[in-house]
Amino acid sequence: MEFNIQALKSELSEKITHKINTKTKPLGSLGKLESIALKISEIQNTLTPKLINPTIIVCAGDHGVTEEGISPFPQEVTFQMVMNYLSGGAAINVFTKQNNIDLLLVDTGVNFDFESHPHLIDKKIAYGTKNFTKGPAMTQKQCDKALNNGAGLVDELQKKGTNIIGFGEMGIGNTTAAAALLCAYTGCTPNKAAGAGTGLDEKGIAHKASVIEIALQLHKELKDPMHILAALGGFEMATITGAMLQAAKYKMTIMIDGFIVTSALLAAYKINNNILDYCIFSHKSHENGHDLMLNYLQAEPILDLDMRLGEGTGSAVAYPIIESAIQFLNRMSSFEDAGVSNR
Amino acid sequence: MEFNIQALKSELSEKITHKINTKTKPLGSLGKLESIALKISEIQNTLTPKLINPTIIVCAGDHGVTEEGISPFPQEVTFQMVMNYLSGGAAINVFTKQNNIDLLLVDTGVNFDFESHPHLIDKKIAYGTKNFTKGPAMTQKQCDKALNNGAGLVDELQKKGTNIIGFGEMGIGNTTAAAALLCAYTGCTPNKAAGAGTGLDEKGIAHKASVIEIALQLHKELKDPMHILAALGGFEMATITGAMLQAAKYKMTIMIDGFIVTSALLAAYKINNNILDYCIFSHKSHENGHDLMLNYLQAEPILDLDMRLGEGTGSAVAYPIIESAIQFLNRMSSFEDAGVSNR
Repeated sequence: MEFNIQALKSELSEKITHKINTKTKPLGSLGKLESIALKISEIQNTLTPKLINPTIIVCAGDHGVTEEGISPFPQEVTFQMVMNYLSGGAAINVFTKQNNIDLLLVDTGVNFDFESHPHLIDKKIAYGTKNFTKGPAMTQKQCDKALNNGAGLVDELQKKGTNIIGFGEMGIGNTTAAAALLCAYTGCTPNKAAGAGTGLDEKGIAHKASVIEIALQLHKELKDPMHILAALGGFEMATITGAMLQAAKYKMTIMIDGFIVTSALLAAYKINNNILDYCIFSHKSHENGHDLMLNYLQAEPILDLDMRLGEGTGSAVAYPIIESAIQFLNRMSSFEDAGVSNR
Repeated sequence: MEFNIQALKSELSEKITHKINTKTKPLGSLGKLESIALKISEIQNTLTPKLINPTIIVCAGDHGVTEEGISPFPQEVTFQMVMNYLSGGAAINVFTKQNNIDLLLVDTGVNFDFESHPHLIDKKIAYGTKNFTKGPAMTQKQCDKALNNGAGLVDELQKKGTNIIGFGEMGIGNTTAAAALLCAYTGCTPNKAAGAGTGLDEKGIAHKASVIEIALQLHKELKDPMHILAALGGFEMATITGAMLQAAKYKMTIMIDGFIVTSALLAAYKINNNILDYCIFSHKSHENGHDLMLNYLQAEPILDLDMRLGEGTGSAVAYPIIESAIQFLNRMSSFEDAGVSNR
């Protein structure tokens, strides 16, 4: 599989910076809004960037490792939450609706037979991954298929003009898989990577770390990022990884959500590190370990609201801030236009 | 002047918390959105809070202390920026428009004769305050009038149904006045309170601190918070202080912006500390000293984007996050409604 991503380079960088600096405000006083405006302008290679058809793709999948008792919620919650998305009652429904973001729901591998539904995209690879303490979570062929599925979803959006995209996920057990990916890709220890997920207590977290330790031992020979993703990831992560790589190829702005979505980004980053040039980190999750991912990627997220819900909610809630960055760049007057004395 | 503010107390607190906790999400996983939802529900004493006619009042005023060379921008920028607001080209215009927030512009004491304009509210007390290193910035009568003006503005909004309000300001020199208030109200030193404002260098900041030190010495006998506000504040701050106190009396939710607006809150807090029950802190300003104010008030702001522009921009940009808090509470399904298994 080839993911050809150009390193970000805009001949307009200096002009964009000048435009930002001559707005009627003290120099630098819009802080991170200015760096977001610069980055998106560079990605779009324009002085007048636009956010077109913003979309969040929520991928759901099940995890064989739930057999090991690593979540306080039963696996059936994955499909039940998909049903909740379809009836519009989940957090991600509320926040995408509030902020006029399109929402796509994808079954990447839920352990349930859904009836066909106009709002559910069927990209199911299997009825959940295998228990990765006993073998790889998925075959390489399954992983490649998930990556391709993700890329295909983004192909469709690109045809519709979408130039900013975010991702969300649902999958009971997926914080365990994400923590395992964190360890495998960055060398951190399971004790540091494992967190409370949907609500484990200290004993539960220690057990989760020991489960991850077993998986890391079993798959320790793996070096290729695609092989690591197949061995330890989930169908939803692999689908998201493929979608991210394709989005960067199309020079979309990619909103990065919390712990699970960032684990998919770690995989994408190991496959092609140019992807970071297209990413905006929407929030810092309260989930233990997200901090380690952010530090590893030297990322500074927009929000830090102690959220840890997943589903792409961090990106959906942060989106208006990104829009503010674009709006000030396009709509504020310059000192000259407004007849205001510069210092 | 009487500002009668009830301490926040809602007999519904337990029911609101139960409603938050039974939404289809891991317990506590919406972090600060949950505490915001709880607070606004308690303020409105309802399980179904609404944000009605959100409004930001921007107050402009000039400062006699600019004589001391404490700003890199000339005083005329105050009136020029008011003109910029009136033509819609400033940051606060852009962000309030983006987020459907009403914007009121008030001349509280700008050193300029504006022609009458349908969007400029004339509450001018004088052509700027006096230089507070040589005497009080305003007389007590002027200060009282400003407080009353602020209260009157809020009276009008209350009639229109507004239940959430924010404040912004413009006034060359007002970070010096705000830093002086910070010192007088909390006991911190000018060296810690003085910051770069619109862009001072280190030498400029040291000079600003020495100017504040002189003012503090001159007015050191003052104890009454109203007297301190008159001696060291600005017309825009006093107007905002009066407006905040009135807003809390009406049980509005008050969005607190950055360094200047928080200095007005310090005055309000010293007058009646129940006001904090009605405040939501929208952002942490990059201006040196805001941190000290936030710590003093034990406040945890929503955003930390290194912004330091003033005008109420922090509140305007943070507003959609507050809306997200209200929306999840009103629109998300509960586990029971959605048929999702709770742990």
